[in-house]
Amino acid sequence: MKKLPHVIIIGAGFGGLQAAQSLATTEVEVTLIDRHNYHTFTPLLYQVATAQLSPEQVTVPVRTLLRQANNVHFLQAEVQQIDFVAREIKTHNHILNYDFLVLATGTQCQFWGIPGAKSDAFPLKTLSHAINLRHHLLSCFEQAATETNWQKRKQLLTISLVGGGATGVELAGALTELVTNVLPRDYPNINPYEITIILIQSGDRLLAELTKSLGDYTVKRLRRLGVKVMLQSKASQVTADGIELDDGTWIPSSTVIWAVGVKAAIPKSFPFIPKGKQGKIIVLPTLQIAEYPEVFAIGDLAKVNCQGKSLSGVAPEALQQGVYVARAIRKQLQGKTITPFNYFNKGRLAIIGCYSGVGQIGIFKLTGFLPWFFWLAVHLIYFPDWRNRLMILLTWFYNYFTGDRPVRLILVVPKFVTSID
Amino acid sequence: MKKLPHVIIIGAGFGGLQAAQSLATTEVEVTLIDRHNYHTFTPLLYQVATAQLSPEQVTVPVRTLLRQANNVHFLQAEVQQIDFVAREIKTHNHILNYDFLVLATGTQCQFWGIPGAKSDAFPLKTLSHAINLRHHLLSCFEQAATETNWQKRKQLLTISLVGGGATGVELAGALTELVTNVLPRDYPNINPYEITIILIQSGDRLLAELTKSLGDYTVKRLRRLGVKVMLQSKASQVTADGIELDDGTWIPSSTVIWAVGVKAAIPKSFPFIPKGKQGKIIVLPTLQIAEYPEVFAIGDLAKVNCQGKSLSGVAPEALQQGVYVARAIRKQLQGKTITPFNYFNKGRLAIIGCYSGVGQIGIFKLTGFLPWFFWLAVHLIYFPDWRNRLMILLTWFYNYFTGDRPVRLILVVPKFVTSID
Repeated sequence: MKKLPHVIIIGAGFGGLQAAQSLATTEVEVTLIDRHNYHTFTPLLYQVATAQLSPEQVTVPVRTLLRQANNVHFLQAEVQQIDFVAREIKTHNHILNYDFLVLATGTQCQFWGIPGAKSDAFPLKTLSHAINLRHHLLSCFEQAATETNWQKRKQLLTISLVGGGATGVELAGALTELVTNVLPRDYPNINPYEITIILIQSGDRLLAELTKSLGDYTVKRLRRLGVKVMLQSKASQVTADGIELDDGTWIPSSTVIWAVGVKAAIPKSFPFIPKGKQGKIIVLPTLQIAEYPEVFAIGDLAKVNCQGKSLSGVAPEALQQGVYVARAIRKQLQGKTITPFNYFNKGRLAIIGCYSGVGQIGIFKLTGFLPWFFWLAVHLIYFPDWRNRLMILLTWFYNYFTGDRPVRLILVVPKFVTSID
Repeated sequence: MKKLPHVIIIGAGFGGLQAAQSLATTEVEVTLIDRHNYHTFTPLLYQVATAQLSPEQVTVPVRTLLRQANNVHFLQAEVQQIDFVAREIKTHNHILNYDFLVLATGTQCQFWGIPGAKSDAFPLKTLSHAINLRHHLLSCFEQAATETNWQKRKQLLTISLVGGGATGVELAGALTELVTNVLPRDYPNINPYEITIILIQSGDRLLAELTKSLGDYTVKRLRRLGVKVMLQSKASQVTADGIELDDGTWIPSSTVIWAVGVKAAIPKSFPFIPKGKQGKIIVLPTLQIAEYPEVFAIGDLAKVNCQGKSLSGVAPEALQQGVYVARAIRKQLQGKTITPFNYFNKGRLAIIGCYSGVGQIGIFKLTGFLPWFFWLAVHLIYFPDWRNRLMILLTWFYNYFTGDRPVRLILVVPKFVTSID
C-alpha cells in the first residue's frame, strides 16, 4: 500500500478546520492538532459572556465535525517544537513528520504592557474568557444587590469596555440588553439607572474598519441606548477597582473588559519566521512561507495582502484561506503551479444590539434592523453544526420573545466559600 | 407598616427552594441563602457527566425561579455562624435575624477515610463534580486514542464505579451507552471491546432500597450490557492509576467514580445539634429541632422517620418537606398546633440505561422499557423551569434518535498546556 502524503494542520479554528474538511476527499493523510477537543465559533462568544447562549452551544467537538472525513485524524496536543528542515513537529507526547504543514494558530490578546491590563482586565478571545466574564458580571450584580455603601455599589455597577471595534460594540449593546431586560426582573433592589456602561475608544470613531458614516451611526445608536461612548481616550492603567485614562481620569469600575489588540499566537519554541505587524507571519501571495513551499500560514496568524490591502482578521478570510490551502496542496501534489490567494469580500456586518446593526455590502451601506437581522442569520448559517444551529435558533427566539437572558449561572465556586466540599 | 415575620432558608436545593416557593403567598418575608446562584436538578447530573446534557440545562438561576415570589429575597452567600438563642445568622458579608429558620443544606460526600478516595476518586454530588467527570472521561479517551503501550491504554479505558445504588447503576448504564454509541464514530482507533466498566458493590445486590428481585434484574441487565458487576466487594484504596479491593485485587483504572456514601452537610461553625446516622440532624416528627420550635431541618440534612422507617434521601421527600415546612410556619403564626410530617411515597423508579429501568409503584414491580420511560418522563415533569424542560426534551429526542452524545467538550485547559494564553 502506497504511503499517502501527510498534511499536518495546527489549530482547529476557522482556517485550520476548513482546511482539514476541504482535504477530506484528497488522497492525503491529515492530522489536525489542537490543544482543545472543540472548535469555538468565536463570533458568538459575546453572547456567552452576556448570558444569552451557553458555552456548549457555541462550541462543537472537533471529532464531530470530522466524522465524515475518514482520512483526517484529530490529535489533542500542544505543539512544542517545529523543525522546518527535518519536516518534523514535536507535541507534548508525540513526534510527527509531515509533507505539508499548515499553521493556523490564530491570535491572542495584546496588552501593550499597560499596567494591570493582563491581570485585572477581562479579555474576550477564547471560550474560557467568555465564561469568566459571565461569572464576573453576574457576581458583581449579586454583590451590588445587597451593597449599602453607595461608592462601592457604583463601582460594582460600572462596566468599562476598552476598544471600539466589533467586539467592544457588540458587547456594549448586549450589556445594554442584559441591563434593561433582565435586571429589573431579577434584582428589584438595583435600579437600571444605577448601571453605567462605558465604551473607551482611542480613535475618533467606532468600527474603524467600516466607513465613517457607519461608525458615526454606531456612536449615535449606542449613546441613545445609554452607553457612554468616550472617543479619543486611551487606557493607561487597569486595577481590580477601575481604569485610569491617559488624561488622568479615574473611572471606578469593577469590570474592565479588554476588547482591543491582538497579536499572532506563535509559541516561542517555533522556528524563526519573518514577522510583520502584530507579530503575524509574513507569507507569499500563495500563503506559503518563503524557502519552505510545503509550509503554509493561514487565517489570523498570517499577514496577508490582497489588492494592496492587509486583511483584517475576520472569519470569512480564514475560511476562504482554508479552502485555498487545500487546493494549493492538491496542485503541488499534481506538480501544478499555485495562483495567489485572492479574498472575495462578500461584505461586512457588525451587530450593535437592541435590534440594530450596521453593514457594508458592495456599494450599499445598511443601518438599523436589516443588518442586525442579517448578522444573526449569516452567523447561524455559517455555524458548522446543525444541531447547535437549531439550539441557538430556539434560544434566540426565546430570548428575543421573552427579553430574558436565561444562562445567568455562576458555575464557579465563589471566593467566599471556605468550608465543606 | 407592620414588620412581617422573617423566615430564613439555608440551601436552595429541592427542599429549600420548595419551602421558599410555598411561602410566596404567606405574609412573611423570606430570605433564601445559597452559596451558588443556581438550583441544581441533581437527578440529571449523571447525564451531564456522560455528555448527554449541558451543565446549563440541568441548572436554573434561583432568581429565575423566584420571579413570581415578591416576598422572597435571594442572597448568594455562605452561612458562617448560627446563633439559635439570639436567632441570628452570620454570612461572609451580612448579619441577619430570623423568626423562623429552615436548614436545608443537604448532604456531601463521605469517604470513610479510605486512602486516596477523596483526592483521586471522582464523586458525583454537585454540578462541578459532573463537569469534572465529563472532562476526565473524555480526556482519557483522547489519551487512549494515541497510546501505544497496551497496559497504559487498558488503564485509560477502564472505568471503575464504587457503589451500587441509583447513582452507580445509572452511571454504569449511561457509560455503556456512551461507549457503544459514540466511541466507534469518534475514535476509530479504539475498539469498544477495549473498554471495561466495573461496578463495585459492597452488598450482595444492587439498588438495596428496592426489593431483591428488582436488584437482581438490574445485575443481570447490566451484565448483559457488558458491565462487570462485582458484588460483595469493597474498595480499600484509590490512586490516580487504579483501585484496590479489600481482598487485595488491584484494578488498573484511570477513572474511579465514587458513587457511595453521604453525610450531612453541616458546617463546623453551626451550633451543636444532636445528630444521628450519617451525621444527619435529629428532628421531631414535625421536622423541628428540639428546644427550638422555630428552627426546622428538612430534606437530606434531617434524619426523618416515617411509619417507623428512616427516609432514604430522595428528591420527592425533600419537596414534600418543603411544602410541609411552609404550612407548619403558617400554622405556628396562627397559633395552631402542627401535625407530624408524613411522607406520601408515590413509588420508586431507577433508570439503568439502554432503554431499561426498574420501578416499584405500590404493589407493582416494573422492569424494562416502561420504568425507563417513566423515569425520564417524571424527571422532565418535575424539572422546575419550562424553558430548560423543553431544551432537555429536544436534546433527549436528538440523543436517542441519533445515538449521539453531543456535549463531548473538554472545557478546561489541559494539563499539558504550557505556553501562551
